[in-house]
Parts: sequence; structure tokens; C-alpha cells
Amino acid sequence: MVVVIQCKDKVGLVAAITGVIAGQLFNIVSIRENVDTADNLFFARLVLESPVTDAMAPVQNVAGAELLQDMLKAVLPVGAIVRVNPEPHKKIALLVTKEYHCLGDILLRQHFGALGASVVCVIGNHDLLGDICQRFSVPFHHVPFEGKDRVAFESAVLRELEAYAFDYIVLAKFMRILSPDFIDRFPVRMINIHHSFLPAFIGANPYRQAFERGVKLIGATAHFVTNDLDEGPIIAQQIIPVNHTFTAADMMKAGKEIETAVLAKALQLVFDDRVFICNNKTIVFE
Amino acid sequence: MVVVIQCKDKVGLVAAITGVIAGQLFNIVSIRENVDTADNLFFARLVLESPVTDAMAPVQNVAGAELLQDMLKAVLPVGAIVRVNPEPHKKIALLVTKEYHCLGDILLRQHFGALGASVVCVIGNHDLLGDICQRFSVPFHHVPFEGKDRVAFESAVLRELEAYAFDYIVLAKFMRILSPDFIDRFPVRMINIHHSFLPAFIGANPYRQAFERGVKLIGATAHFVTNDLDEGPIIAQQIIPVNHTFTAADMMKAGKEIETAVLAKALQLVFDDRVFICNNKTIVFE
Amino acid sequence: MVVVIQCKDKVGLVAAITGVIAGQLFNIVSIRENVDTADNLFFARLVLESPVTDAMAPVQNVAGAELLQDMLKAVLPVGAIVRVNPEPHKKIALLVTKEYHCLGDILLRQHFGALGASVVCVIGNHDLLGDICQRFSVPFHHVPFEGKDRVAFESAVLRELEAYAFDYIVLAKFMRILSPDFIDRFPVRMINIHHSFLPAFIGANPYRQAFERGVKLIGATAHFVTNDLDEGPIIAQQIIPVNHTFTAADMMKAGKEIETAVLAKALQLVFDDRVFICNNKTIVFE
Amino acid sequence: MVVVIQCKDKVGLVAAITGVIAGQLFNIVSIRENVDTADNLFFARLVLESPVTDAMAPVQNVAGAELLQDMLKAVLPVGAIVRVNPEPHKKIALLVTKEYHCLGDILLRQHFGALGASVVCVIGNHDLLGDICQRFSVPFHHVPFEGKDRVAFESAVLRELEAYAFDYIVLAKFMRILSPDFIDRFPVRMINIHHSFLPAFIGANPYRQAFERGVKLIGATAHFVTNDLDEGPIIAQQIIPVNHTFTAADMMKAGKEIETAVLAKALQLVFDDRVFICNNKTIVFE
Repeated sequence: MVVVIQCKDKVGLVAAITGVIAGQLFNIVSIRENVDTADNLFFARLVLESPVTDAMAPVQNVAGAELLQDMLKAVLPVGAIVRVNPEPHKKIALLVTKEYHCLGDILLRQHFGALGASVVCVIGNHDLLGDICQRFSVPFHHVPFEGKDRVAFESAVLRELEAYAFDYIVLAKFMRILSPDFIDRFPVRMINIHHSFLPAFIGANPYRQAFERGVKLIGATAHFVTNDLDEGPIIAQQIIPVNHTFTAADMMKAGKEIETAVLAKALQLVFDDRVFICNNKTIVFE
Repeated sequence: MVVVIQCKDKVGLVAAITGVIAGQLFNIVSIRENVDTADNLFFARLVLESPVTDAMAPVQNVAGAELLQDMLKAVLPVGAIVRVNPEPHKKIALLVTKEYHCLGDILLRQHFGALGASVVCVIGNHDLLGDICQRFSVPFHHVPFEGKDRVAFESAVLRELEAYAFDYIVLAKFMRILSPDFIDRFPVRMINIHHSFLPAFIGANPYRQAFERGVKLIGATAHFVTNDLDEGPIIAQQIIPVNHTFTAADMMKAGKEIETAVLAKALQLVFDDRVFICNNKTIVFE
Repeated sequence: MVVVIQCKDKVGLVAAITGVIAGQLFNIVSIRENVDTADNLFFARLVLESPVTDAMAPVQNVAGAELLQDMLKAVLPVGAIVRVNPEPHKKIALLVTKEYHCLGDILLRQHFGALGASVVCVIGNHDLLGDICQRFSVPFHHVPFEGKDRVAFESAVLRELEAYAFDYIVLAKFMRILSPDFIDRFPVRMINIHHSFLPAFIGANPYRQAFERGVKLIGATAHFVTNDLDEGPIIAQQIIPVNHTFTAADMMKAGKEIETAVLAKALQLVFDDRVFICNNKTIVFE
Repeated sequence: MVVVIQCKDKVGLVAAITGVIAGQLFNIVSIRENVDTADNLFFARLVLESPVTDAMAPVQNVAGAELLQDMLKAVLPVGAIVRVNPEPHKKIALLVTKEYHCLGDILLRQHFGALGASVVCVIGNHDLLGDICQRFSVPFHHVPFEGKDRVAFESAVLRELEAYAFDYIVLAKFMRILSPDFIDRFPVRMINIHHSFLPAFIGANPYRQAFERGVKLIGATAHFVTNDLDEGPIIAQQIIPVNHTFTAADMMKAGKEIETAVLAKALQLVFDDRVFICNNKTIVFE
């Protein structure tokens, strides 16, 4: 049983929380807690275990989870977010353009039950990736940008999304910039993978720039999407070494490898309820 | 203020601990907790902060730490180990042979106050490293093995050690095997750095074996010393990539780099009271 | 144009090779060369470019490649292996059991033309992975072990393989040990991915052993298969960090991630003609 | 024997070079070659071995090296840079400010003969690091900036440097920006270590910015110094993972670890004559 809590900090919070848990005879297998002292915010993730020796333990089932949630809310500051046993199998919608690497990896993992989530649909502004979705029996909707302005395009995307229930939107190499209006509809629910270099390159053709600068590492960053473009809270980052024998095309290829790996890692952390957002940063209880 | 706790597990332990802490008006900045369910053991590390708004907070000083320790012991199972504000600056004795890399790195860090510990003395079975100790104003004792059997040699080492108070013995590339008798005197207080390869090579000249096997990675392992040679609880491990252009000598050189880094990392974790031992494994609250 | 050469070493070899190349007006974009002094063996990989300014360059096409190959053989020691423009798109057969992660990754890459090879068929001793092969339109043959001895089983596998032309057999988590007879049929043509830990664990359930030892890293090794089980020439190795919060199951999951990545990397190197074998080691011109 | 060559590219260059070498009966143990096709530049590094079976080999000594150098120049384009057996033990001058970590590591390595270079002097704009230099018997000169303008300060530094012969100046955490005039005096001879983050942070207090952005990796870059501040050719880059529990101070501490490692790595590559500069990039024959 997983419990995640986010609220204003105050003295005695952990005691109050764990008092409730102990009163229900749960054992705490692990607890991760972090206080952001600058903003006085409290974050915690607990893994509980019902005592196996006590067949009478009252809160082992879903009803029990709801009861525990209410009991915890009662001892926490007003406005506390408490989730007991958050949905262990998330639902996600994907937005893609032409590149297959992140999409393919996600489809493969979900197909074999290793993603921790179901892909409810994929929306592409090109139709190139419809075939792979069909091979994995996942709905694909082609919403071309051509002939539309951004408002019309985003409306069309939203219309497709409306047919589905989902927890997160994953931008799996979606190459169009979304409007603040669109982003505001899914706060803390959109995840993007960004090719970011060391040092970071801005503008068109970052791999060409990286090549010309002769970098020895290239990286990728998975982050929540906010209106501050490519500046939302970072979930995961990794790098891959390159050298002078890499052409710009080789660097792009290496970039795809690391993008795939970082997005997979970030999604696993998010779907496992290990990621909290505090201002523009994440707290990751890895 | 750091609190570390190790005891038998039972339901309500975190509630009891944090209840005491809240009663003393401490704020919990971070808490790491782990239960070993196989052995029913409980481990926790808490970082506390006195409420800055309350000038009357009763336990901000050392006396307060002692009081808090007693109050915590009172609510924990018999035999619990509790340390409040464990000595933040440890004392260590080093055993060395001929290789300078780990010793030099440790001396340098302590000289600039970055080790989290003081080196009280260095004992070498060769005298090669006396000069560098002298340059850092650290006592060096040469205890040659030649002309002694192991009992006599270890007695001579112990005689030198007796003059010093220390928390840990660090085997910084000490190339002699210590007897069970010697090791038993310092349970959970001796740390070794071991060149271990992937796959592991046993016996003489591991770098020659690694070279002949054409490995692509070499590694190092820092671990507590037990009588099971090179098999004590692992604290930290890292690797460094190598390739076919590396001679056995180049591999040894790369091995020294990674040994230095892994031992430095392991010592930092131990000196920071982040490492617990549970059976033959460590729990590291990194 | 890529040229790979392997032969006995002697003074003047590079001069002879590059003399032939210059005589044909090729420019050498990059050259990697290695001499194994212990065995007096010479290995080289050259990337050539026809001079763009010279429309008369005589050896820009396939016929040119054959001519260049003959001209190089003429100046090299007897028994030299020379390949000019080795088949840039290899053919591979896969042997699998139940685990999908390496197979799925390979199928995905080949589907999008990013593998550098075609998968001509997949043979499984269980039928679990037939479905994913079908989704990628790749032939799958189920050859159960049950009811057969090893000789009969391997004969059945060979009968299926006979229908296909392939350059390499990839053991993508194939969990049966192959006989020396089988292995001898495909010298330097079988590649395996091996979960290897640091330190290496032998025998059943390596992840349980790794968990009990409390390792901080787990790794994987891709290697050519020889009759010395899990001891063939290493192509690539990587590790992934783990910690005390990992159960044995979590370690297995992390192990799958790194197995997938290492096998993909090794295949890319092999298919790109960057890997040579020298005794029981590889030379990798990365 | 090491041979490094840099010149305009043309067809037949490797043949010409290796022809000369073969004529002198040297065996080529390894050859690394790279052509920058954009600029038509040729770079090569060869490791030669005299045939052990031939006691009459004419060019085994320094005179031989000079002769070989002349013979190579004769077959290369005008303006070619050829060095046979470049000085294997370099001389370096260090510029420092207050931070000890890179300086200490360099002093330690050189003290034990593991740097591949001698530190001829250290110049500090503060006097804090004089003590550690004295402990390693290395001359330290304190050139304060206070009371001087940049011209006067740099003149004072140059006056100290004039007393020494050196191959490279290493800025080992030297925190003052040098003028184009100063930099122009030491083209391709100054190496700097730069804390660079992912994404890169510009301006004051980069670690505070990294902390506020919640990065998961921090990095460091060693590069040659040009007048384009922090934009010279990159020699080496590495990263170290961080997480939400790191304060800005912890990130700075982690940054120092990685700066030390990257600078050590870069110096080893440079001192080993493995680094070439091509426009604003390096070619590193690692």
C-alpha cells in the first residue's frame, strides 16, 4: 500500500501521520519525506504493509484505503493532498510527430505489461506512426497541422482527446509548440522529452550546433510541461558520451538512444508515484 | 541535528519516534527509513531543525541532544541503538603498503577540511609513504612485515594503534591479509577498497587476467571488512570503461582512478552517518 | 566505403595498404589500426571517400570494391582477410525463450530501419514471443524442448535455420545451453547477452544472490559465443546502479534494462564492422 | 615512439607517411587518423616500435627521431606540423585563486610521477594556496589583483611566468577573466576547467541557479582557452548525478569532485599528445 502526501509543513506532521497509520496496525516498510524549507512545504511517500500475523487488520482492502485517506486528512493541514493506493496502473495519451524511438519503446513496454500504464491513444500531426500503433492495437489519430492555425489545430487535438480518460499526456517527440491555453488545461499532467546538450543549444538544429562545438557529451531531459518553454520541472536527465568521429547525424542517433532511456525512466518514476512538484523543481523519491 | 536509529521493527515505531521529536518542537527536514522484513529490523536517519521562530526551543544544544536520545530510547524496543548528533567529525587510522593514490587523496581532503574526518595516524608495512604523510603533518609509523610472522606483525600494528583514539580503520590499499583475531577487534569499524572486476578475477595479478579476458569495464568496491575475505558488506561500487588499446598497466592505472573515487565516496557516506549494516548488506541513505 | 583487414603483422603493412588505396585515388577519411604484439596480428578498419573533384575515379562502384579487394590481397601476407564494403545490412536469426525485452527492442529497431540488419527469423523454445514477432511481420518458429533430448532439440532448431540465409545468430535471452557441436557450426557468428554482476554470480538465480550480497551495481555483458560457456570474447559491457531499496525482483527489472541496452550497442558495433576477434578478446574500433 | 602529424589533407598522405616509416623498419603498433572534410585538414597519431629482431635499426635514438621527422616533413604538404617523440614529460604553470581541489590533485599526481608533467610554478591571486604548494616543494607566487587594474595585474603575472619554461598554462580554478592580449600570448597552450551545467547556467552563482532549477545532473568541461570566453575547444566533459536532497552547497561540493576528475582526464590526454585542435573543436585520439 502506497501513501503520498503533500501539504504545508508544521512541527509534528510525521508523528501525526504515522500515529494514524500505527493505529490501523500497518507496518511502515519505507518512508521518504522532504521538507522544502524555503516554501514550508511537506512531501512524503510511505510504503505500508499489513501485519501478516493479524488476520483482523481492518484496512487491507479498497474501503480500508479510503478510510485511511480520510483519517490522514483529518490530522493534516487544510488543503493537504493525500492519496492512499493511488491508481497503480495509469492511463496516458501520447502526442507524436515523426520520430518512432520514444513511441516504439513505450508501446513495447505497455504491450508486455512493463510500463505501469496503458496507452489509451496516440495523436500524431503526421501519419507516419499510425502503422506501429496499429501493430500494437493502440488507437492512432492523425491530426495534421497543415491548413490550420494553432488554435484550430489544438482544438482538433482536444476533440480527439475528449474521447479518452487519461492521467497524463506524454509528448513523445512531439515537435510542435503548444499554446499556454492548451498547457493550462493539463497542469502537472504533461511530460516532455527534450534533447538538451551540455552546454545547451537553443534554436534550430541543435545537433548541428553540438557537432560544430565539438561536445563530448550529449544529454536528454524529461520534464513536466509548463508555459515556460522547455523550462518545466525536471524529472530525469542522462547523458551519453560522443567524440570527434561522430557526425551531426551520429550525434542525433546517440541523442535518440538517450531520449528513449530518459523518458522511460521518467515515466516509471511518475507512474510509480515517486515524483512531486515543488515550485519549479521536482522531488523524486527514487 | 542528525538522528540515527537501529532496532527491532514493530508497528508504530515511526509514530513513537516522531511523537517524541514533535513533543520537543523539532521540525523533521528529512527522514529515511527502511525495514528489513526478512530479519524484522528497523533503520532510520532523520535530519531535524529547531523551529527558528521559537527562541525557547529547549533542546538546541548538546545537553538537548542527550536528553532527546534518552527520550527516544525510552519508546524504542530494548537493545535499540540511538545516536543523536553522532560525532560529525570522525577520527580514522589508515593502513597502507606502497600505493599512494588512496592515501594521497584522503590526506589532501582532510588537509582542507573536506574529508569529514581527521587522520590520526598512518601505518605502513613499507616506508615509502612516510614522506607524503610528513608533508601533510600526519604521523606515520613504519611496521615492516619482514622478519615477523603474522601474529608478531599484527601485534606491532596494534601497539602503534593503541596510542590513538579513532572511529574507523581504513585499509587504503593495504596489501596484507589480516587475521580473524585482528578483524574481530574492530567490528564494523574497518573499511577496505577492493579492485573488483566485471567479471571478478580472483588470485594474483587481477589486471593481467582482466587484460587477457578483454573486459570493457573495470571496477572497484569499498566494503566493511569481515572475516569473509573481500566479502564484507558493500558500501559503494563504481566502474570505469576500458578498451582494447589498454595494456595491463593502463588497466591498473585506470583501476587506481576508480579505487580512489570509490573509497572517497564510501568514506563520505560513512562519516556522514548514512550507512547501516544489516546482515551482510548495507543500507545507504544517500 | 569501408575496408576491414585482418592478417599477420609485418613491417610496412600500412604503407602497402594505403599505397594501393592512394593509387586508386581514394581519400582515407579515417583509419583505425591495432597490432596485437603478443600474437603478431594486424587489424585495420578504414573509411574511404572517392575524391569528389575527380569524376574519373575508377573504383566508385561495386566492381571497384572487388578490384580494390583483390589489389589489397595481392600486397598482404598469405591468409589475409580483406573485406571492401562488407555487406552494410546484415541478416540475423534470433533464438529466444520467454523474455521479451531484447527481442522487442531488436524488432522495433529493425522495423524502423535503425538496426543495420534484418531479422530473418526468430526461433523460440517457448511460444510466448510468437505474437510480437507476428505483429512485426517476422517469421517465428516454435521449437519446444519438451519431449526431446538436446541432440534432437538442436537438430530441430538447425532444420528451421536451414531455410534462411543469415550472417549472425543472436541469443536474445535464449535460456538453454547449446552443445559444442551446435556452437562449432557458427564460429564468430553467435552473439549472446549475459547478465553478469559485479562480483559475478554463478549458478541459479543470480539476482537473488546479488540481492543477498547487497551489490550497488548490476551489469550485463554481450559476447561472442564459444564453447567456453559465458567466456567468449566480450563485445560490450555496461552497468546500472542499484541500492538497498531494490528487491531481487527490482534488480531483475533493472537487469533487463541494461541487458537491452548492451545487446543493442554490441549489435550496432558488430553490424557496423567495428569488431574483430583476437584470441579470446575483441578489438573494437568504436 | 609517438608521431603526431597535422597538415592539409590530400590523397596518398597515409601511404606517404607509412612508406617513410616502413623504409626505416619501424613497426606501426597503432595508428589513429582523422580527416576534417569541411576544412580539408589531416590529423594523425602513430605509435611505432622498432623491430626487436633487428639490432641494426637505424632510428632508435633521439637522433633517429630527428631524422624521421625530417623525412616525414619532406613528403608532407608545406606547413605540415610533425613531431616525433614529442617531449613525453611536459612542463606546466598553474594559475589559481582560492579553491584547492584541482590544484591539490595535480600536485599529488606530479609528486608521485603520475601526472606526465612537472608543475614549474603556481601563481595565485590570493595567497591561500601557497601553503599546499610549499608542502609539495613547488614555487608559489602571490600576485594580488587588489590595487591593480587588469593590465597591471596581467603584467605582474607575466613577469612571474617569464622566469619559467613551460609548455602549458593550466587555469586550475582561476577566477579572473584574462584579457585577449594575455590569451593571445599562449595560443593552444592554456587549459581551463569550467563548471558547466545541464542546461548551462550563465552569470553569477551557477550552483544556486542549478539548485533552483532542480537539475538532476551537474557537469564540468575542460577546454582550451580562446578569446571566446568559456567557448574554446572542448577536451573532456563529464557529469555527476544529483537529486532534490542536494542543497546549493552540496551541488557545489559535487561540482568540485567532477571538476577535479575532468581536469585530470583532460591533462592526461593533452600531455599524452592525444589532442589536436581543428577550428573550434578537438580531435581526441583516446
